[in-house]
Amino acid sequence: VAKRVRSQKPASFGEREAVTLLARTFARSQRVGAEIDVGIGDDAAVLRARGSQLLVWTSDACVEGVHFDRRWLGLDDIGFRSFQAALSDLAAMGAEPIAALSNLILPAGFSEKELGRLSRGQAAAARSTRCPIVGGNLSRGGELSITTTALGRCTAPLLRSSARLGDELWLVGDVGLARAGLEILRRNLPASSGYRARCVAAWRRPRALIAQGSRLCGKAHAALDVSDGLSGDAARIAEASRVRIVIEEPALLRSFAPELGRAAALLGVSALELALYGGEDYALLATGARAQRPRAAKRIGRVERGRGVGLERLPGEKLHELGAGFDHLTAQSRGGREARARAPR
Amino acid sequence: VAKRVRSQKPASFGEREAVTLLARTFARSQRVGAEIDVGIGDDAAVLRARGSQLLVWTSDACVEGVHFDRRWLGLDDIGFRSFQAALSDLAAMGAEPIAALSNLILPAGFSEKELGRLSRGQAAAARSTRCPIVGGNLSRGGELSITTTALGRCTAPLLRSSARLGDELWLVGDVGLARAGLEILRRNLPASSGYRARCVAAWRRPRALIAQGSRLCGKAHAALDVSDGLSGDAARIAEASRVRIVIEEPALLRSFAPELGRAAALLGVSALELALYGGEDYALLATGARAQRPRAAKRIGRVERGRGVGLERLPGEKLHELGAGFDHLTAQSRGGREARARAPR
Repeated sequence: VAKRVRSQKPASFGEREAVTLLARTFARSQRVGAEIDVGIGDDAAVLRARGSQLLVWTSDACVEGVHFDRRWLGLDDIGFRSFQAALSDLAAMGAEPIAALSNLILPAGFSEKELGRLSRGQAAAARSTRCPIVGGNLSRGGELSITTTALGRCTAPLLRSSARLGDELWLVGDVGLARAGLEILRRNLPASSGYRARCVAAWRRPRALIAQGSRLCGKAHAALDVSDGLSGDAARIAEASRVRIVIEEPALLRSFAPELGRAAALLGVSALELALYGGEDYALLATGARAQRPRAAKRIGRVERGRGVGLERLPGEKLHELGAGFDHLTAQSRGGREARARAPR
Repeated sequence: VAKRVRSQKPASFGEREAVTLLARTFARSQRVGAEIDVGIGDDAAVLRARGSQLLVWTSDACVEGVHFDRRWLGLDDIGFRSFQAALSDLAAMGAEPIAALSNLILPAGFSEKELGRLSRGQAAAARSTRCPIVGGNLSRGGELSITTTALGRCTAPLLRSSARLGDELWLVGDVGLARAGLEILRRNLPASSGYRARCVAAWRRPRALIAQGSRLCGKAHAALDVSDGLSGDAARIAEASRVRIVIEEPALLRSFAPELGRAAALLGVSALELALYGGEDYALLATGARAQRPRAAKRIGRVERGRGVGLERLPGEKLHELGAGFDHLTAQSRGGREARARAPR
């Protein structure tokens, strides 16, 4: 429950409190089932089917006005990216998709043509992830929302809680581009080609890194998908694994796509900030032993004894403490820095 | 997709059109998976896990202002009944629950106390159905909605499309009581005990008939859960199975709980109307051979050659044609009769 809770409006309690409450309330209901390997708190639930098969199961909601804005996204983009966001949780567990359900809440006046466009975006994402949409639910409501539920399988799921002291910190995929793309759209900058188009596409049409997640299996110790920015998501591994994560700035900078530097210059922000606080890239962040690092994974830091996330600007220098993350339910920064770096979405 | 679409507001297209559109759009995405036994169109999707196990998978959404109204339901009731509504789809397939995901969209200002109450209702329903809640998603939005996704298993799922000529029509559980309960609340009638309390409880705290559904397996040919009233749900079996369903009024009247007659008299409506158009009882409607009828199933009609649903008031009399059902997306009656019988919810 509750990996991703976003809001512009302050609420009377935070994501952390809400997840704790739900985990506690639902814990008793979990006692009755003997087949649950992983319950609330990771990227997805893990169920043990009879036999040796593990089922990995996740949901993700996209709500109009909270997660997306039709000014910058076509309904096909909204369908596509909502599906990829859910599938990204399977990727983060190292699972192979089996199938998905699509749950749509449609506002009054939503037309058949609009439903066609939305669902074509979902279907395109389903094909690209080889994850057929086999059912779901359709309902009326005051605002458009898409809740995608995805089921996958794997033999050894990658949890957030399994990072080990001495591990390297690995990044698979690009970070920062999606946020740069959103900023380009917000500022009405032309983006029909080149690095700008690449950034906009990264935000509009993200791809769940299914194959890459699968290749982390048996190699990485811990993993999650970077949905909320490197800083906050690294903190989730640190907290779940009870370790300290050090992000090494020079290594992180070397991992950046060349388009990120150009976009950062255009936007007048630092590429580092876009990467640390940007979010919605759906890259994978993992930890593992040096000898096991797959080709696609770039080393960007290390796992140490301690807690929290530190940024090492130069080797041997005192670490810059990164904030405890961004609480989407209250929309209040706990670190101070994120509030500036992260515009509401 | 789209078993249950309810609305007060006319939309520009209907449920039938929407389901057809989605089934067509998602059909291509289904080609990539080889493990789908049943896709869009039944109570739940059926997946084939490696080995002989069939997975049954369903979602159901409850949206404030569309499916529920806090004037007549506590948040614990809302949590409880939204969970049971989703589990009822597993019951209708004859499946045994494995686990569920809870996807909540919370409006601004929704408090921790309110979340506690809502989730305790869900947890109580999870215990009563032996279906642990193992995860989900939490998000902000403009209105409260609960989307429950449930996974189950079975060996031979009960489809809507398998009714055979000569089958009996079976009812398991009570119909009409829930709608009577809702009317009692709407009219502010006292309901602290007796038949009124029974009706109100039937609406506030419905039970998915999991064990009964399971016992239909291997006996019934077709089944679904009565979420929208006997008339409309019988029409779904008739259409999917390409048969005609005859509801025999004397047999149906004999199946009624004694409380239904008393509530109908109090409300000044006919018990028959409450049963045919009431909905939200989550009884099971099935068809099967006479010799196979389980103890809990009451015979209320038969399956014949033809199409649609007829009501036989007396044996041998000309049938009264029941309407084609109620389209929740456009909120327009196709039969004429439902519009009067069904108040908006």
